[in-house]
Order: sequence, then structure tokens, then C-alpha cells
Amino acid sequence: MIETPYLLFLGDAPDMLAAKVAIGIRDWRPDNAIGQIGLEGCGADLGLTEMTLEQGLEAGAKTLVIGVANRGGYISAAWKEVLVRALELGYDIASGLHNLLRDEGELVAAAQMHGRTLHDVRVPTVAYPIATGVKRSGKRCLAVGTDCSVGKMYTALAMDTVMQERGMKSSFRATGQTGILITGQGVPLDAVIADFMAGAVEYLTPDNDPDHWDMIEGQGSLFHVSYSGVTMALVHGGQPDALILCHEPTREHMRGLPGFSLPSLEALRDTAITLAKVSNPDVKVVGISVNTQHLSEDEAVSYLAEVEARMGLPAVDPYRHGAGRLVDALDAI
Amino acid sequence: MIETPYLLFLGDAPDMLAAKVAIGIRDWRPDNAIGQIGLEGCGADLGLTEMTLEQGLEAGAKTLVIGVANRGGYISAAWKEVLVRALELGYDIASGLHNLLRDEGELVAAAQMHGRTLHDVRVPTVAYPIATGVKRSGKRCLAVGTDCSVGKMYTALAMDTVMQERGMKSSFRATGQTGILITGQGVPLDAVIADFMAGAVEYLTPDNDPDHWDMIEGQGSLFHVSYSGVTMALVHGGQPDALILCHEPTREHMRGLPGFSLPSLEALRDTAITLAKVSNPDVKVVGISVNTQHLSEDEAVSYLAEVEARMGLPAVDPYRHGAGRLVDALDAI
Repeated sequence: MIETPYLLFLGDAPDMLAAKVAIGIRDWRPDNAIGQIGLEGCGADLGLTEMTLEQGLEAGAKTLVIGVANRGGYISAAWKEVLVRALELGYDIASGLHNLLRDEGELVAAAQMHGRTLHDVRVPTVAYPIATGVKRSGKRCLAVGTDCSVGKMYTALAMDTVMQERGMKSSFRATGQTGILITGQGVPLDAVIADFMAGAVEYLTPDNDPDHWDMIEGQGSLFHVSYSGVTMALVHGGQPDALILCHEPTREHMRGLPGFSLPSLEALRDTAITLAKVSNPDVKVVGISVNTQHLSEDEAVSYLAEVEARMGLPAVDPYRHGAGRLVDALDAI
Repeated sequence: MIETPYLLFLGDAPDMLAAKVAIGIRDWRPDNAIGQIGLEGCGADLGLTEMTLEQGLEAGAKTLVIGVANRGGYISAAWKEVLVRALELGYDIASGLHNLLRDEGELVAAAQMHGRTLHDVRVPTVAYPIATGVKRSGKRCLAVGTDCSVGKMYTALAMDTVMQERGMKSSFRATGQTGILITGQGVPLDAVIADFMAGAVEYLTPDNDPDHWDMIEGQGSLFHVSYSGVTMALVHGGQPDALILCHEPTREHMRGLPGFSLPSLEALRDTAITLAKVSNPDVKVVGISVNTQHLSEDEAVSYLAEVEARMGLPAVDPYRHGAGRLVDALDAI
């Protein structure tokens, strides 16, 4: 559990693309984002108040979050200077970078000296159990995709936000480093030992109120040969009551796998529901979330109408048109 | 890679059930099993020559293999005495126990002093890559089960043995600790980090001669909610050309999961082939392997005939009736 709120560290990010984590926090947990701090030459601006470390502390920040992903996940000397100073001043630090904070001697020493915590959210900190499959109380929704990176996290976060606005009981359950940094907790599923993957998902989504929904962040795809095992653990460990199908219609091949074409939404529906029924015979596919960012508004509207008619399920782009209709569908089961 | 041949350490195993690993080595790689060594009160006897450590060395043994699984995977003081002496004499030691050799200070010290190697086969020693899905040369066969522990390893080993006898090119590819100890190499798949599972299977089954078969040891089951992610990685990373369905007809529920009934062979066939086609569109289900140990001979013959007629595929118990017909089926595709 990472202490909130955060000061968002943008480093020397060349542009906004590099600041994906910080943008996620600003957009989805604005209360967690007290301000931003960049280095000389930083090309990213979240529109938050630019603060010194001292100003961040005064504003109440508890943790300095590395909000950027640089090439190679490298922690430079210029970064380290700021990070060590932050630890001295009393910040914890949280990072999803490939290179770990805990492998940097200066940071470890400063954290020890000042009694602060280094959070490497890529690394599991819990000894997860083997999954039992025992039915849990409360309800769970899982986003599954035709491919990786088609908007599964976005969909779950957008639906969770609508549910909060409507006064429904829901929790976004993060399974990747960006999601964990956004919410301050979760399971870095792709770094869990194989035998404990499904158990980690059970751990993440425990018994809850009968009318509470866990909105589980999906990972990978049942059709992506590199990561399908991780997705399978979510389908079985998550014990979902509802599945949302996620798709990006302009993708020419599976991400990182030239020569592998994407499955149809029908194939995803049939495969996902068959597998999900093993852990929950009552599971239903309730809606479709399409990432239409590469389509014009007209193209998007017409594509969504075609999918909705063909599949007999609400089909929306939650970014363009809101997640309300997906939540309606969830609420109806 | 563990140096062969082995002297098999039976410790104080109360009975033969506890000596599963040693039995596997004796049955499947008899050339690797130079002899056996037990402690006072050992109730297991493999029928191999009982040897002292010194006699084992004279007979050519290179590695002392822990051939027993005791409750909790504990390495006792009495065991340690023998193991330290073995290292002093020049043996490597290999173990699949839950408690690791490398965590025992005395063993580590003795191995260092005498330049010997401790093999904990539960622990991956390779930084496996992310799977690429790129088509590999050679052919691959994967055993998939309706449940865990239904005879998948046995089936692959039995088929591999028949193939060797027939002069076919084949390699048994171990994915669990017993298989790794039997053959001296493999991937401990259930201990691999989630993101690298499918890549580990690709690594295990590289390019090969066009007429060479990798006989891949299966793990878990697509229908076992605790371990299905591991199975999925085998289905996609293994890129199988042929699938063998494995089943144990008297099992009342999924292993370790009361309340979860086993899928039908039809459900396994349909789910496995659908998923396997993602990595290899030409994959075929070629046969069925039934573990009939809890049936009488008459019951077994009649059950196999019924399954064969119903499924339209050769159905055999390789232990009772040999794996020849399964190899015929493999050879025909």
C-alpha cells in the first residue's frame, strides 16, 4: 500500500507520451495528484501545479511517484539527486520502472537513514497462496481483450468511476504497474510465480458485500501467445460474474507478434465465456468496449453501431462516449 | 543439466509411494540409475543394487539424486550427514524438494569446498525470454489433461520410449521437477515468472529436424482453476502439432478442488484445440490416454472401447497396453 497523496515526478520526459503513468494518476485519481515536478528540459506538462519537493510536502504529499517511463527504465544520476533529496525530506518513493529503486545503493542508503520506503511496484511483496476456487461473496467484472493494450485498464477505470458517481459499491483492482501506481495498491500479476498467479487474483478480489463490484484490470489476451497464461489466471482466479470484451479495430496484427492476426469479437466471446464458466457457471458477457482513437467520430459511431447489432451487446468507446451504458449492462445482471 | 548416471538416495522413505522420483528414474532412464542408497529403516526398495557412496562412485555415479519426497520437503540432520559426505567424495547433488539444498549452510559450504554443484530443480536457473510465437522447425506433441495428475508425464515418457525403440527421432521435454530429475534437464515451469512462461516453453522446444518430435510434459489442466495459466503457456508456447487428451475416469472432483467436477473429454478436446490453433493452425488431437489403474482389466478394456468409439480417436492406457497405438497416430499426421 503506497501512501497518498503523491507528488508526480516527471524527470526529463521528452514529451507527454513518456508521462503515461503520471497522466493516469491525474486522470483517474486526481485527489492523489498534489502537483508535478520536472527537471530542466522536461517536455511533459500535466497542467498540475509545478512544485519543489519542499512545496509538495507542505501541500501534504507523502510519496514521490516516478510518473514517467524512459527507454530502458533507467534511473539517471540527475534523477537520483532529486530522489535522494526527496527521501531526506521525508518522502517515500514509488516506481514501476524496469530498473528497481532497491538496486540503487544511494537510494537504499538514504531510505534506511531517513526511515522511508522504496516501492518497486513491479515486484510482488506478498507470498500469494495457491488458488482454491472457493466461491467468494460480492461480484466481479473482468475486461478481456482481443489483444494486449486495447484499453482494458481504461475500461475498468472508466466503469469504476461511473459506478462511484452513481453511488454503487465498486473497487478498481489493479493487476499491472500503472494501475498499482494510480490506486496505490494491487498485484503485479506478470511478475508473480506461475503456480501462484490465480491465487494472487483471488487474494486481490476477496469476499465482499453482495452488491459490491470488483472491477478487475485485465492483462494480455487469451489469444496472445506470449501472455495468455496470465490472462487465463485472471479468468479463473477472478471468478468473474461479468466479462467486458475489449477491442481496437485498426490493429493489423497482435501486439509484438507480426503474422498473428487478431481474433474476432465472436471468437473472444466464445473462448472467454467457455473458460470463465469453469470458475463461475453464471458468468455473462455484458458489453463491448472499443478503443476508437484511430477512427473519426463518424467512423467510430458507425463501427460501434455495427458491432452492437452484430453481437447483440452494448458497444461503446468509454473514452469517447462514456462508460455509462457498460455500467447499465453490469447493473442489469 | 545434471551429470549422469545417478546414485538414487532413498533416505528413510517409509514406503514405495514416497519414492516416486526414484521409481520414475529407474523405470524411464534405467541407464541413469546405477544403484540405490537408503538410511537405516528405509522402507522403499527399487530392486537396484544397494550401494555405499563409495561403491556408487566406483560404479561411475556422478550425481546423488534425492529420490524421495517426504512430508514438507524437509532435509533432516540424518540426511544431511550423507549428503555432506557425498559432496566430500565428489558427487553433485540434485533435489526437487520444496526446501532447497542451497538454503542449507552445511551443504553449500561442502559443495564450495569440494567444487561440486547443488541442483535445486524447482528453481529456474535460466533467464527465459518472452515468447515470440515464431514458427519453429520440427514437430511437437503435448499431453493435456482433464485434471492434474492424470498421467500426462507418464504418457509423454511412454510414447517417447516407443519412438526411441522404433528409431524415430524424439525427445521427452520435462516441465516439472520429477521429469527434470528423470532426464537431467528441463524447465520447472510452475516456478517461472508469469511473463516468461510461454517463452520458457519455446526455449525448451527449439528448432529441430523436420522429422523430430518433442514430447512435451504437460502441467495442470485448462480446467483446473489453480494452475490453468501454466497449462495455457504450454499450449501456446509449445506450438503443438499434436495433442493427446489424458483422463482418469474414476476421479470424483478436480484434484484439490472439491465441488469442481471434471470436464468431459469432448469439452477438453474442443477447448484445447481452439486454444492451440492460435499458435499452430494445423494442430490435431490424435489420441486419448486413459489412466485405468482404478479399473479392473475388463472394466478398462470396455471403458477404452467406449471412449474410442465415442471420440473417434485411439484410446489406450499406455501403462496397461503400451503406447504403440498413440505413436501410430502421431506418425500418421
